[in-house]
Amino acid sequence: MEINITRAAHLEFRVTDLDRAHDFYVRVLGFIETDRDEKRLYLGGLEEREHHSLVLREADSPGVSHLAFRVASPDDLEQLASLYQGNGCPIRWLPEGSEKGQGRALRVQDSSGLPLEFYHEMSRREWLLQRFELYRGAHVMRLDHFNCQVAEVQRAYDWFTSSLGFYCSEITVTEDEPPQLWAAWLHRKQNVHDIAVMNGIGPRMHHAGFWLADQGSVLRACDLLAASGYADHIERGPGRHGISNAFFVYLRDPDGNRIELYTNDYLIPEPDWEPVRWRINDPRRATFWGHKPPPSWFDEASRVESIETGEFVPTASPPHRDRPEFVT
Amino acid sequence: MEINITRAAHLEFRVTDLDRAHDFYVRVLGFIETDRDEKRLYLGGLEEREHHSLVLREADSPGVSHLAFRVASPDDLEQLASLYQGNGCPIRWLPEGSEKGQGRALRVQDSSGLPLEFYHEMSRREWLLQRFELYRGAHVMRLDHFNCQVAEVQRAYDWFTSSLGFYCSEITVTEDEPPQLWAAWLHRKQNVHDIAVMNGIGPRMHHAGFWLADQGSVLRACDLLAASGYADHIERGPGRHGISNAFFVYLRDPDGNRIELYTNDYLIPEPDWEPVRWRINDPRRATFWGHKPPPSWFDEASRVESIETGEFVPTASPPHRDRPEFVT
Amino acid sequence: MEINITRAAHLEFRVTDLDRAHDFYVRVLGFIETDRDEKRLYLGGLEEREHHSLVLREADSPGVSHLAFRVASPDDLEQLASLYQGNGCPIRWLPEGSEKGQGRALRVQDSSGLPLEFYHEMSRREWLLQRFELYRGAHVMRLDHFNCQVAEVQRAYDWFTSSLGFYCSEITVTEDEPPQLWAAWLHRKQNVHDIAVMNGIGPRMHHAGFWLADQGSVLRACDLLAASGYADHIERGPGRHGISNAFFVYLRDPDGNRIELYTNDYLIPEPDWEPVRWRINDPRRATFWGHKPPPSWFDEASRVESIETGEFVPTASPPHRDRPEFVT
Amino acid sequence: MEINITRAAHLEFRVTDLDRAHDFYVRVLGFIETDRDEKRLYLGGLEEREHHSLVLREADSPGVSHLAFRVASPDDLEQLASLYQGNGCPIRWLPEGSEKGQGRALRVQDSSGLPLEFYHEMSRREWLLQRFELYRGAHVMRLDHFNCQVAEVQRAYDWFTSSLGFYCSEITVTEDEPPQLWAAWLHRKQNVHDIAVMNGIGPRMHHAGFWLADQGSVLRACDLLAASGYADHIERGPGRHGISNAFFVYLRDPDGNRIELYTNDYLIPEPDWEPVRWRINDPRRATFWGHKPPPSWFDEASRVESIETGEFVPTASPPHRDRPEFVT
Repeated sequence: MEINITRAAHLEFRVTDLDRAHDFYVRVLGFIETDRDEKRLYLGGLEEREHHSLVLREADSPGVSHLAFRVASPDDLEQLASLYQGNGCPIRWLPEGSEKGQGRALRVQDSSGLPLEFYHEMSRREWLLQRFELYRGAHVMRLDHFNCQVAEVQRAYDWFTSSLGFYCSEITVTEDEPPQLWAAWLHRKQNVHDIAVMNGIGPRMHHAGFWLADQGSVLRACDLLAASGYADHIERGPGRHGISNAFFVYLRDPDGNRIELYTNDYLIPEPDWEPVRWRINDPRRATFWGHKPPPSWFDEASRVESIETGEFVPTASPPHRDRPEFVT
Repeated sequence: MEINITRAAHLEFRVTDLDRAHDFYVRVLGFIETDRDEKRLYLGGLEEREHHSLVLREADSPGVSHLAFRVASPDDLEQLASLYQGNGCPIRWLPEGSEKGQGRALRVQDSSGLPLEFYHEMSRREWLLQRFELYRGAHVMRLDHFNCQVAEVQRAYDWFTSSLGFYCSEITVTEDEPPQLWAAWLHRKQNVHDIAVMNGIGPRMHHAGFWLADQGSVLRACDLLAASGYADHIERGPGRHGISNAFFVYLRDPDGNRIELYTNDYLIPEPDWEPVRWRINDPRRATFWGHKPPPSWFDEASRVESIETGEFVPTASPPHRDRPEFVT
Repeated sequence: MEINITRAAHLEFRVTDLDRAHDFYVRVLGFIETDRDEKRLYLGGLEEREHHSLVLREADSPGVSHLAFRVASPDDLEQLASLYQGNGCPIRWLPEGSEKGQGRALRVQDSSGLPLEFYHEMSRREWLLQRFELYRGAHVMRLDHFNCQVAEVQRAYDWFTSSLGFYCSEITVTEDEPPQLWAAWLHRKQNVHDIAVMNGIGPRMHHAGFWLADQGSVLRACDLLAASGYADHIERGPGRHGISNAFFVYLRDPDGNRIELYTNDYLIPEPDWEPVRWRINDPRRATFWGHKPPPSWFDEASRVESIETGEFVPTASPPHRDRPEFVT
Repeated sequence: MEINITRAAHLEFRVTDLDRAHDFYVRVLGFIETDRDEKRLYLGGLEEREHHSLVLREADSPGVSHLAFRVASPDDLEQLASLYQGNGCPIRWLPEGSEKGQGRALRVQDSSGLPLEFYHEMSRREWLLQRFELYRGAHVMRLDHFNCQVAEVQRAYDWFTSSLGFYCSEITVTEDEPPQLWAAWLHRKQNVHDIAVMNGIGPRMHHAGFWLADQGSVLRACDLLAASGYADHIERGPGRHGISNAFFVYLRDPDGNRIELYTNDYLIPEPDWEPVRWRINDPRRATFWGHKPPPSWFDEASRVESIETGEFVPTASPPHRDRPEFVT
C-alpha cells in the first residue's frame, strides 16, 4: 500500500527570546497561542483543529529543528521508517508526548539533510473558524507549506515525487540547454505546495508559508507590523507571485526566521495536473508585477538541526546560480 | 456673514445598561472608548481627533438626547441662537464643560422638534489613524451622519437648506403628481450627508451612520456580531444603497437604538451639485440590489428629548405614507 | 482498487433562450465562453483548464440534464458501471465526443434519481488564471459543487460515502430524538463539498456552486446584476453560511435555474475530519448572521432528466419537513 | 469676497502616441473615454460628472500642458486674473470651447512656473457611479490631486495658502535646525490634497493622483498591468503612505508621465485642522511599511509648458536635497 502523507503540518523554529517572539507572532500577527511550557510556545491558526502548527523553542540561535508532515495512519510511519532506512538516512523514533499533544513520531534526516518529522496522532483543540471574536492581527488561518533550499534539487525532487508520492504543481528551470531543474513546488494536499525545494546553499529552511483568507489580511499585517515598530521585518512584498499566483508578503521574525503570509493560490484536485513551467530569469516568475526580490531573500535562510545531535547540519553549495540574473 | 456649520459631530444615545452597551459598541464593534464617567461612556472612531463622537448615557429608556453639529467659530453660535430664537424655537446655552471635553454650546429644539446642539470647542485626543494596533471590530472610522424622521419633511428641508446653508445631494419624492418631497439628504461636509430627513412619525432619530473604510469591515462586523451572540441585532443588510451608493448594514444596539455602518459613498466637492432624484417606489432606491427593508426599519426609531425638560417630545404623523408600497 | 472520483466537474442546464442566458452568464457574470454550437453554450471559469464546467443547452423548459464528476482513470468508469448496474440503476455509455471535448462517458440514474455522469478525458484549454485582462464580472474561478434535494437523504448519504468513497464535512440533523439526517455535505476534492444532499422533494437539482476568489467578487456580482436589470434574480444573500463558513449569494438565471456564487470555505486535507454537526433549526446554520432564507429557496429547484428518455424524472416527497421551522 | 477654488479638476498630458496611450489608460486601467478629437483623448472617472478629468494630447514629447482647478463662479476667474497679474505672472484667457466642453478659462504661469488653469463651466456627462456594468480595469473613480516639484517650496506654500485660500493637511520638514519646509499637502476640497508641492528640480509636474474606491482596485491594477505587458510601468508600490495614509501605486504611462492610483486617505471637513508634520528622513513618511522609493521617483518628472509659447519652462534646482538620505 502506498504511503499516505496528508500535508505539511507544523514546524519548530528556534528563537532566542520567547517574549519577543510572542510579541511578534501573537500580539502583532495574531497567531493563536494554544499552549506553552517553560521553553516553548505552541501556536496555531484559526482554521486548524490540531494542537499546534508552529512551535517556538527557546535556543541560543535561530534555526529550525524539524518540519513535520502528518500521515494518514500509524502504519504509514512504519513504512516511512523502512523507506528512509533503506535509503541510508538516519531515523529516530519519538515516543508519544515527546512533543506536546503529539503521538509517536518519526524523525528522519533526509538525503538533502532536512530534518523531517512524520506523525499521525495529534490532540485536537476547539475549532475557531467561526469564533470571529478571536480573530486578531493578520487572521492567520493555517500553515500552508515549507520552502527549503537544497544543494541537489533534482535529487530532492526525485525523492519526494517517486518515493513519497508528492505531486508537482510548478517548476522553475535554468536557462541551460537542456534546461535543468532549479526549483519545484510539490504537494500532497490539493493546493500548490506542501513543500518547495529550491536550488541554493542547503540544507536550509527558507520559509514557512501561512495561509490567510484574503489580500486585505496581507495588507493589514503590514500596517500592524509598521505600527508596532516592525517595519524593517517586512523583507519582500506585498506582491503577487507568478509562481502559484499567490498574493504574499515575506517577514523576518525578531530572530531572522522567515515566514510568508500567503493567499490566493489555487486548488489542484487531480493527480494528472500538468506542472506550470517557469524559466529562472522570467521577471514575472518571482513577482508577477516585476518587483525584484532583495538579495537577502536568496542569501539568508534558517539553518536546520541534526535529528541526532541537535547541532546544525553542514551546508553545501548548489550547482546552479542561486538566484535570477536580475538579482545581484 | 454666513453661518458655517462644518459637520455632524456627535450624538448622545440613552441606554439602560452601560456595561451591556459597552460590550456591544466597544468589545464587539471596536468603537474607541475615549473617556467615561459615572453615567456616560464617551466613544469615538479611528479617524477622529475630537474627544468623542458618540456618548452613551445611562437612562431608564432608550432614546436620543441631542444631535450635535460643529461650527467653524464661536461667533456662529451667536448667530444660530438669534436665528432659532427668531424662528420661535426654544434654545438653551450649556456652559463649557457641561459636556465633557466640550466648550460652550447651544442647544435648540428645532421646528421639527429635533434636539440639536451646536458647539465650536472640543478637546482633542491622539489621532489613531495609523495606530493600526488599536484597530478592533468593525474599524469604525468616524461619525458620518444623522437620519431623522420628521412629520413635515418639506419644512425641515427648507430650514436646513435656506437658513442653515445645507446642500442637498439626493432626494426622494412621492409618486404624486406633482411629486412631493419624501426625504432629503443634506450636507455641509463634502459627502452625501450630515443629516437626512425622512417623511415619518416624528420627531424621531432614525439612525446615526458611522463611516468605515471598506466593504470588508461591514462584513466583518456581521461576523463579529453573530459570533458574539448579536445576530438578531443585524436589522437590515448588508447591502448597497441606491441612494448614496453606500454599502451598509443597520444594527440595533441592545436598547434598540439604531446605527448604520456605512462606506463607499461619494465626494461632493462643489456647491452646484445637481441632486440625484429617486421615486419612493423605485425598488433600487433603498437597496440597489432589490432587497426590501423590513417593516421595523420604518416602524421603529428613537424618541428624542426636549432640551428643556429631558422628557420625550411628542410625535406627529406625516402627510405621506411612511414607506414604499412594497414594504408592508 | 478503490474507485477514484476526483471532483464535481461540470453540469448541463436547460435554458429556453440561449441569447438571454448568454447575457446573464457571460456578459454580466463574466463566465468564460469556451465554445458553442447550435444548441449549446460551453462556459468555464478562470482557474479551470478543461473545456467546460457549465453547459447551457437550449430546451423548451429549464432543468438539468446531468451532473458530471471526473474520475482519475478510464478504469474507474468500468468499475462505476458495474457498481451502479449491481445496484439496479440504469446506465448508459456515451461515446467520445458525444459531449464536446469529452471522452467516453458513463451516465447513470442513481438510486435517488439523479442523472450523474462520470468521465475521465476532457480536452484542455488555455489556463486563464493569470490572464487578468480577461477577468470580467464576478471573476468566476471554478465550479465547486452541486446541491441536490432528494427524498431519501440517508440512503443517498450511505451510497455516496460507502460505495463512492465520498467524505463528509458537515451534516444537518432534525430535532427528533434520536436526530435524523437532514442533509450532508460530501466531498472528494479537499474542500467542503462536491455534492450536498438535502431532505426535500426530489430528485431535484437545487443549485450549482461556483467558487470566487474573494468576498468583493460576490458583492460586485450583485452590483453588476442590479445595474444590468437583474436585481430580482438575486434570491438570497449575500451572507455568510454557518455551514461551510462560505460567503455566498444565490442567483436565479433567466430560466430560474439556481447558481450560488461562493467563497471563503475551508480546506479539508485529511480523511479523518470529524464532520461539523448542525441542528436544522439553529438560526446560524443557514445564514450565520441570522438572515432567513426565503421560502422560494426551499420550494423551487430544477427538475432533472431521465438519462434514458430525456423526460423529467418524477419526484417524491421527503420524510422530514423540508425547511427549518422559522421559514414558512 | 474670497476666491473660491473648489478642487483639482483636470490636467493635460502630452503623449507621443495616442493609440498606445489609449491602450494603457482605457483598455488596461479602465479610464472612461468620454470624447476624442484628432489630437486628443478625453478621459474621466466613474464618480465624475464633468466632460473630462484627463486630456491626452498628441505631442512630440511627454510633458504637461496645464493643471486645472475649478472655481465656484465666473467671478472667481476675474479675481484670479487680477491677483496673478498683480503678482507679475503671465495670464491668458481661453475663450469658451478652446478646450472641449469647457467655458471661458484663465491660464496662468504661477510664480513657481506651473501652468495652471482655472475655469467654472464644463459640460456634464452621464453619471456612471451606478453603471457598474461599465466598470473596467482599476475602476478609476476621480482625479484627486496634483503633485509638483518646485524650486522654492516655501514660496509656493505661502502663495497657495495665503492668496488662494488652500488649507494644509500635512507637511514634511528638513532635518535642519530650525527645520525648513520640504513639502506641503494643500487642499480646497475636503481631503488630504488638491495639490502637493515638493522641494525638487522645478517647475515639474511629478504626478497626478486618481482616486480608487478600495485597496483591491490598486492590486487589480497591478495584475492587469502585468498581464498586459506593462509590469515595468509599475514604478513604486503598492504600499501605504505615511503621509496621507493612502494605499497607493505609482505608474509610468508609455511616455513616462506618472500617475498615482490612490485610496484610503481621510476626510478633513474643517478649516482648523492641525497639519500632520513629518521629518524628511522618517522611514515611515514615504512608505509607512518602510519600503524605499526608487531614485527614479525623485529624479524623473514631467516638464511643463509655458502658457505663452507652449515650450517647456526652464527648471531650477531647489535649496534642499531633493530626497531622503536613505534614497541614493
